[in-house]
Amino acid sequence: MVSFKIYFVTGNKGKFEEAKEILGRYGIKIEMKHIPYPEVQAETLREVVDFGLKYLQDKLSKPFFVEDSGLFIEALKGFPGVYSAYVFKTIGNNGILKLMENVENRNAKFISVVGYFDGKNKRIFEGAVNGRISHSKRGGKGFGFDPIFIPENYNNTFAELGSEKNKISHRYKALKKLGEYLKNAEKSQRKE
Amino acid sequence: MVSFKIYFVTGNKGKFEEAKEILGRYGIKIEMKHIPYPEVQAETLREVVDFGLKYLQDKLSKPFFVEDSGLFIEALKGFPGVYSAYVFKTIGNNGILKLMENVENRNAKFISVVGYFDGKNKRIFEGAVNGRISHSKRGGKGFGFDPIFIPENYNNTFAELGSEKNKISHRYKALKKLGEYLKNAEKSQRKE
Repeated sequence: MVSFKIYFVTGNKGKFEEAKEILGRYGIKIEMKHIPYPEVQAETLREVVDFGLKYLQDKLSKPFFVEDSGLFIEALKGFPGVYSAYVFKTIGNNGILKLMENVENRNAKFISVVGYFDGKNKRIFEGAVNGRISHSKRGGKGFGFDPIFIPENYNNTFAELGSEKNKISHRYKALKKLGEYLKNAEKSQRKE
Repeated sequence: MVSFKIYFVTGNKGKFEEAKEILGRYGIKIEMKHIPYPEVQAETLREVVDFGLKYLQDKLSKPFFVEDSGLFIEALKGFPGVYSAYVFKTIGNNGILKLMENVENRNAKFISVVGYFDGKNKRIFEGAVNGRISHSKRGGKGFGFDPIFIPENYNNTFAELGSEKNKISHRYKALKKLGEYLKNAEKSQRKE
């Protein structure tokens, strides 16, 4: 069991609840810390996360992580991508469905990038899940674009899958890597 | 006549050409300087410009300015707004027209924010132009969303208006304020 507590710097309760459940499996306790940090307009989530870590690293006393994620739709050249949060707030799921009307290629990918800073070093973990855009909104669980994203090998959207989402999602995959990293870091510390 | 040369930090040739023409009327010579700077994900153009100025102010020896602009569509809650450049690159004019299919309220606004740094102080100038989104792309001049934006009191899009755009546009209005500010600054310097 990892014994310390770490901060998750986010203002998004849905994300926090997911991360709490996933990292809880590794015995990692997290605390939500809402410090708004500049999210840079960049091409990749990695750049956004990297910039966030740099900005926050002098501002927190405990180890912390940030997470950024996005939905990348092939036929829309990666839109809404890095700007998923803003696009969700403005045109929302209905806007995406409208843009995808009569579009045959419905391939999409959810990507999550987690950036962790332990007070000295930073680590980046990435998770992705392939899938497709549904033809209508379905399901009442989850948040954001969950009602229109159907992961590979499933017929249900993320919003229909509910907590099963947290066993296959992009965020799960990235946080799993963080969880395993912290577990190993603790083990090797004990040996010293 | 303003006698010095200032940098316009941008990677956008279309913007540079417009600014050159507009500021030329004030006798101001500008030079294009392509230094990529972090554009923060923010709600307003002012925040983006302010952040850019802070980032660049130690990196340039001459007075410089940056400009950020966006198209804010009322029925889309301000989308694409601060992220206009990215949205143009991905879903483009066709994407906006698709989102606006069967939407009656076509009100939109172009906003330009110019941030100037003279080596000591910064100044922010804003310009806006009201208008509406057309039902199809029209005109081959200008750049970005010009083919789908019809300014108030006109029946043509910015892309049809060509150089007349530079007499009424949001960018014209913001740069005009910069031009007048620089002219006055020079006058008062001469008096001293």
